Amino acid sequence: MLPDQHLLRIPGPSPIPPSVQLAMSQPMIGHRGQEAKELLKQIKPKLKFVFGTKQDVSIITGSGTAGLETAVVNAVKQGEEVLVVETGAFGERFSKICAAYQLKTHHLKVDWGNAVTPEAIQEYLRKHQNIKAVFTTYCETSTGVLNPIEEIAKTVHTYSDALVIVDGVSCVGGVETKMDEWGIDILVTGSQKAMMLPAGLTFVAVSDRAWKVIEENEQPRFYLDLTKYRDNLIKDSTPFTPGLSLLFGLKQALKLMEEEGLKQVYSRHQLMMKMTREAFRAHDIPLLTNDIAASPTVTAVNPTDFKAEDLRSIIKSEFGLSIAGGQQHLKGKIFRIGHMGYCSVADVLQTISIIEIGLTRIGKTIELGKGIRAAQEVILEGNNNV
Amino acid sequence: MLPDQHLLRIPGPSPIPPSVQLAMSQPMIGHRGQEAKELLKQIKPKLKFVFGTKQDVSIITGSGTAGLETAVVNAVKQGEEVLVVETGAFGERFSKICAAYQLKTHHLKVDWGNAVTPEAIQEYLRKHQNIKAVFTTYCETSTGVLNPIEEIAKTVHTYSDALVIVDGVSCVGGVETKMDEWGIDILVTGSQKAMMLPAGLTFVAVSDRAWKVIEENEQPRFYLDLTKYRDNLIKDSTPFTPGLSLLFGLKQALKLMEEEGLKQVYSRHQLMMKMTREAFRAHDIPLLTNDIAASPTVTAVNPTDFKAEDLRSIIKSEFGLSIAGGQQHLKGKIFRIGHMGYCSVADVLQTISIIEIGLTRIGKTIELGKGIRAAQEVILEGNNNV
Repeated sequence: MLPDQHLLRIPGPSPIPPSVQLAMSQPMIGHRGQEAKELLKQIKPKLKFVFGTKQDVSIITGSGTAGLETAVVNAVKQGEEVLVVETGAFGERFSKICAAYQLKTHHLKVDWGNAVTPEAIQEYLRKHQNIKAVFTTYCETSTGVLNPIEEIAKTVHTYSDALVIVDGVSCVGGVETKMDEWGIDILVTGSQKAMMLPAGLTFVAVSDRAWKVIEENEQPRFYLDLTKYRDNLIKDSTPFTPGLSLLFGLKQALKLMEEEGLKQVYSRHQLMMKMTREAFRAHDIPLLTNDIAASPTVTAVNPTDFKAEDLRSIIKSEFGLSIAGGQQHLKGKIFRIGHMGYCSVADVLQTISIIEIGLTRIGKTIELGKGIRAAQEVILEGNNNV
Repeated sequence: MLPDQHLLRIPGPSPIPPSVQLAMSQPMIGHRGQEAKELLKQIKPKLKFVFGTKQDVSIITGSGTAGLETAVVNAVKQGEEVLVVETGAFGERFSKICAAYQLKTHHLKVDWGNAVTPEAIQEYLRKHQNIKAVFTTYCETSTGVLNPIEEIAKTVHTYSDALVIVDGVSCVGGVETKMDEWGIDILVTGSQKAMMLPAGLTFVAVSDRAWKVIEENEQPRFYLDLTKYRDNLIKDSTPFTPGLSLLFGLKQALKLMEEEGLKQVYSRHQLMMKMTREAFRAHDIPLLTNDIAASPTVTAVNPTDFKAEDLRSIIKSEFGLSIAGGQQHLKGKIFRIGHMGYCSVADVLQTISIIEIGLTRIGKTIELGKGIRAAQEVILEGNNNV
């Protein structure tokens, strides 16, 4: 193993681009001065573009969970009825936050590895007319499932007045997101996944109809009060001291996304997903999700004839390659490969070729290079610009 | 292509390890103060270890060519007879320097791609008894040849009193080097190859017998006067302002080499060479050098049925992967892959998998994954610790 080389292919945090790292090394500035205002002014339109919204996107210094709690504490209040769609560990995270705020929470549990169907949500809303908000997850990091947010949002709006609140932490920035067009009311993401930054910032955008609910919501809140962020952001400012080095980095990360082109960013993620899936398919190693439910940012693999932990352990110690294990009841059973943000098709080829060596080392008989060939063919069949 | 990703696989400069990059970002210090003395004091023993010598290694701020000129201007004077072994472009570099100083230069020209034989040198020395120095190249960067320096040095010492002067720029730090044991009189290297730093420092070590010659040599010189460097280094200092940020980086690069263990560094380079060679062999693409003459730091490939420049161009534009072309009469004919310094077997797998795609793109029919499989097998057949 090469000292100082960390091949980070977990589903977040993701690697930091060198120019973002460099940007974050800039000297501190006063957060109430003109330079900080300039910085936020430049960031604002680009963040809106990534979210697919005309709304300003609030930037809160905190990790993704702070963003999820922000959505809860602003949109609903104690005793209200909500529906949480649980397709994995991060759906459950919403439930835990709702429980802490003593909401009357309904749980729509979906088997891990599957996406929720709009029909199941429709059925639920039909039975429970008082649901004020539906909490759901765009990419479920624990299983590599991408839920059909556009259809979910349209279903909720057709059958209820509930707000559609979406955890987009592990995919916004890497997967097409049209907040306004799809009718998402509150969309949350974090900095450390497809946004190519360290953890420490969470982004929250709010629709016009959700702003009306938030303004009238008496649920006590202070640091996470979205109206404070909105009112300051209009003046290119933040209500509390922001994580400035992360904002320096954010400006550069957004510049990189703009240079590559968002459409191209999304097709690169699609390509990386297909490459990873075809590689395992070539070796007859089962994937946890089907093609339709698969996320372009993380792939979960569900091996039947070797131990996920043996593979993870050998590739980490021999090559410095980190992939993630499973969570909760899938712990020790599956492994998950992150391919998001600052990750190229070349990096995916590297990951697969190392995994093939790892599989051989732990005693599984495979045809070396077969997964790589399948992934190479995905590139060659795609367009020329990867 | 992922913006901000540069896959640098040319034979120098090589990629910089993150911890070295970080070390180089330290604030400036006075170069005559105690901190700078401490820095040099810590560097000295570790550099000696890399060179395989008990001598202090002079650190000159300048690029590799400054180091080669240092060897010339200190060891010989105008009108003296010298032999330059030319196995490629960097052997010729020595000849050009010798010509500038009006030395009486003999040229032992070897076909590019081959190593020099000790017998050829012996033959030359037998005919020319007045040769004061033999200039030779350890790794010839332009062809990927590793000359048999141990045998060359022993031959020169057996058949003459000439000094053995070695350009080790593109391999010292990545290939076993025993300056004292082998009888090298002056050994030069640069910072930007296997030493994992940017260009800007050149390192020169001198044997006891060469010091005697240098002390009596009246050839005019000032900045490159080795006695100045030696006399200052004893006091943990430099005669002129040193490139301090590079020294900060050097300390960390040497620490990384120590942590990995020099023996392991060398076997990693051996493994990367074998992987690269076996990958091209699997595709029946000819290598420029034979196995015995091959360098562990750079591999030259000599294609017969496709254009080297077409391949280089497509992998650069599509994947951001840089490999080098040929020099002089090999320009446009060969391509060269650097695998030195901060480069892992995982990086070699990535390079090969991209080259396979590139070959397909330019119309060569190959079995995808076959080269990768050959390289993977080299790893699996080797020891467990790569």
